[in-house]
Amino acid sequence: MSSKEADRWLQAAEEAYPLAVRLLGEMVAIPSVAAQHREIPAAASYVKRSVEALGGEALIYDDLPGNPVVYGFFAAGPGGDADRTLLFYNHYDVQPEEPAEEWESPPFALTEREGKLFGRGVGDNKGDIAARLAAVDLLRRQPGGLPCNVKFMVEGEEEIGSPNLAPYVARYAESFAADACIWEFGYKDEGERQGLVAGLRGLLYLELVCKGADQDQHSLAGGYIDNPVLRLAHALSSLKDPNGEVLVAGFHDDAQAPTPEELEAVRQLPFDGEAIKRLYGLRLPLLTERSGKDPRVVTAFESLLTVCGIQGGYTGSGAKTLIPSEAMAKVEARLAAGQEPQRILELLRAHLDRHGYDDIQIRVLNDRQRGFRSDLSDPFVQLVRSTAEELYPDGVTLTPSHPGCGPMYDLGSVLQLPIVSTGIGWIGSRYHAPNENVRIADLKQGIAHIALLLSRFGGQPSTN
Amino acid sequence: MSSKEADRWLQAAEEAYPLAVRLLGEMVAIPSVAAQHREIPAAASYVKRSVEALGGEALIYDDLPGNPVVYGFFAAGPGGDADRTLLFYNHYDVQPEEPAEEWESPPFALTEREGKLFGRGVGDNKGDIAARLAAVDLLRRQPGGLPCNVKFMVEGEEEIGSPNLAPYVARYAESFAADACIWEFGYKDEGERQGLVAGLRGLLYLELVCKGADQDQHSLAGGYIDNPVLRLAHALSSLKDPNGEVLVAGFHDDAQAPTPEELEAVRQLPFDGEAIKRLYGLRLPLLTERSGKDPRVVTAFESLLTVCGIQGGYTGSGAKTLIPSEAMAKVEARLAAGQEPQRILELLRAHLDRHGYDDIQIRVLNDRQRGFRSDLSDPFVQLVRSTAEELYPDGVTLTPSHPGCGPMYDLGSVLQLPIVSTGIGWIGSRYHAPNENVRIADLKQGIAHIALLLSRFGGQPSTN
Repeated sequence: MSSKEADRWLQAAEEAYPLAVRLLGEMVAIPSVAAQHREIPAAASYVKRSVEALGGEALIYDDLPGNPVVYGFFAAGPGGDADRTLLFYNHYDVQPEEPAEEWESPPFALTEREGKLFGRGVGDNKGDIAARLAAVDLLRRQPGGLPCNVKFMVEGEEEIGSPNLAPYVARYAESFAADACIWEFGYKDEGERQGLVAGLRGLLYLELVCKGADQDQHSLAGGYIDNPVLRLAHALSSLKDPNGEVLVAGFHDDAQAPTPEELEAVRQLPFDGEAIKRLYGLRLPLLTERSGKDPRVVTAFESLLTVCGIQGGYTGSGAKTLIPSEAMAKVEARLAAGQEPQRILELLRAHLDRHGYDDIQIRVLNDRQRGFRSDLSDPFVQLVRSTAEELYPDGVTLTPSHPGCGPMYDLGSVLQLPIVSTGIGWIGSRYHAPNENVRIADLKQGIAHIALLLSRFGGQPSTN
Repeated sequence: MSSKEADRWLQAAEEAYPLAVRLLGEMVAIPSVAAQHREIPAAASYVKRSVEALGGEALIYDDLPGNPVVYGFFAAGPGGDADRTLLFYNHYDVQPEEPAEEWESPPFALTEREGKLFGRGVGDNKGDIAARLAAVDLLRRQPGGLPCNVKFMVEGEEEIGSPNLAPYVARYAESFAADACIWEFGYKDEGERQGLVAGLRGLLYLELVCKGADQDQHSLAGGYIDNPVLRLAHALSSLKDPNGEVLVAGFHDDAQAPTPEELEAVRQLPFDGEAIKRLYGLRLPLLTERSGKDPRVVTAFESLLTVCGIQGGYTGSGAKTLIPSEAMAKVEARLAAGQEPQRILELLRAHLDRHGYDDIQIRVLNDRQRGFRSDLSDPFVQLVRSTAEELYPDGVTLTPSHPGCGPMYDLGSVLQLPIVSTGIGWIGSRYHAPNENVRIADLKQGIAHIALLLSRFGGQPSTN
């Protein structure tokens, strides 16, 4: 479905690529690991200076708790539509490089190899910052200049769950006001289809702790001293049945029901259960093979409950005969749009109490992220999809609700705008892992897609 | 209930004490840690030489797999009964000294402090070897000499579960033939009552492993990829209900029913649930408070199932969103007399299969120990009790079936003899822990009790 215009932007992206790769190289060189408080101010300053160097305005907001948030602004050109504004959401922080010894080139030195660019953050998310800045620069050099206003929100805590972003969005809602938003990421799937995402999940992450005694007891006393590991196993079993059905009363209640359009979009997504089993070496049947549900529908719209870890008692080699003093499980609820983490927490507490586990403590590790879904019928969503279809030869998928998390709700609900995510990754980008990479061809396509999108967006009627 | 004879042996034990403490010091100096293969031959040789030095005969059996077993023999004296033989079962191996830094004196240097002797193995079990040898020596110096034949079986793998003892007992059954056996250990409880034990538990120790995938998966896929931790939690929950009732069909079937005499003996044992809760800082009610059962009866006669540990997925600090690839639990069955570990293993396997967990692997870590209970009406059991009652001023308890494990079945069933355990420990002896100790007064009482017991045993009619 490629168009002449798309081809033109693909050619132009070749010119823009040197700028993108320079910006990316300079950003990768700053090890801005939020979890380790490394080089955060340097990375924020770099983004600000880059916006300014390309002719934009930029500010660093750092008057609230948390890492600074960079505001960037490029005004519409003389031939553009000054009433239309597109906002890019990105982040300058990255994941730690560990295990460092598994990198084939230094994680903080951008390295080209076999048509790919390697380095921490090239896929998540510095490559997209570079591509977007390069696309803006490209458009500014065209006759008529930038077709609309462009804003950037570049935060520094995405990799640690954006715990402080919402207050910044609230305080600077006017600065960041826009008609629509392009989210940080996107990647091509195993069939080279470009993945667009119009919604993300909320997250509640907990530790469940069952304490039995001050210290481990000899299992001689197993006939009368209660066992926290078994007790926690019973409590976890009461939360979810072996087929994956959550048994917590009210758990799904506030989940926003999918629209027919969303259901239709989800049913168009590829899903190959056998391929997944082979790829990951799965020993067990898929839960959805037992329940008969559509895994794509479950993944998009059901609130999910997952035990991420468990520990208690003796787990070294050999036999040690004891009654554990304590057991702990990590449990996450991946929430659908419409659900409040606090409410789910209350339901879990009530469930445990009702089942006689009022002694089991719940420690909250993360209760700040809510789910969000853009309205698929919004013209902006359609525009992102149609431009992507023009540009990406192997097709496009539109996921109404990706199971991943992010502060999409914080922006979407406060700024009241549709949000779609797209980006320059591919299925082998190894986000968060050693040898993170993007393919040069994808980076160029990403620049071209943003340019095409902005050129069309400038012509759309304002909705906000 | 002290007798003149008991008082006489208590006085005589003062003379025997220097020999006992010398033997003990020399044994403690040999770090014969079976789990670490340290100094095993030296310890076996030392025991052999000690028996010989005291006028006995000794052999080291080492023609079968496992650490050598020492055979010792002292013939009845001219005034003794050469038709009667008492066997002592002991072990020369000890637990590791770790954590070494918590010892207040070197673990392998016998140290006297505040009326106690400190060192690895003083309580478990070198102190009892020393006390018994000193008692034999004491009797040999009396007019008429040793009142009966005395044999020693001193093995070197008790602390690792005596995995190779049974074949030695079978091969050398004639050498070790005796009329009765005194087992390795015994200790005074919090009320200074001397604890006698007439039975031990069997043990089956397993790892249950549930494998889901080659590696951890992102919890994005939690809607359709099955979770081994939750699956194992369900499987464990199916084995035992929250009140401690084992749900495995047939689990209790082969357990030898207690005799009225055994039940009566168990009901005479002290048990203070509130004191136990305070002592160990228990947060939860005792299982027997929920079930209404007698904890002493459960502990003595029911087969017990305990989850000793569990691990799977992410258990570090903070939140990591994943589906664990694998989960593992350590599970022990503490078996009643009459039960075969292999049969219990089959029942567990069948239970898991029947409940749909045929994918859960069972790894056997220990399936060699069976439970054993001596006949409480046996004159030897009565003799050990009555002599202890004469000697110990604060009373005696007789436990028909201690919940601990040991190779009692291997001796009792093959050699066909009654077995009672008694020894020189106290509730603060810290077996297996740093600062293991015995009280000097208990050591002297232990020598006196063995001397009194042997002097009476020589006069009893032979039963075998």
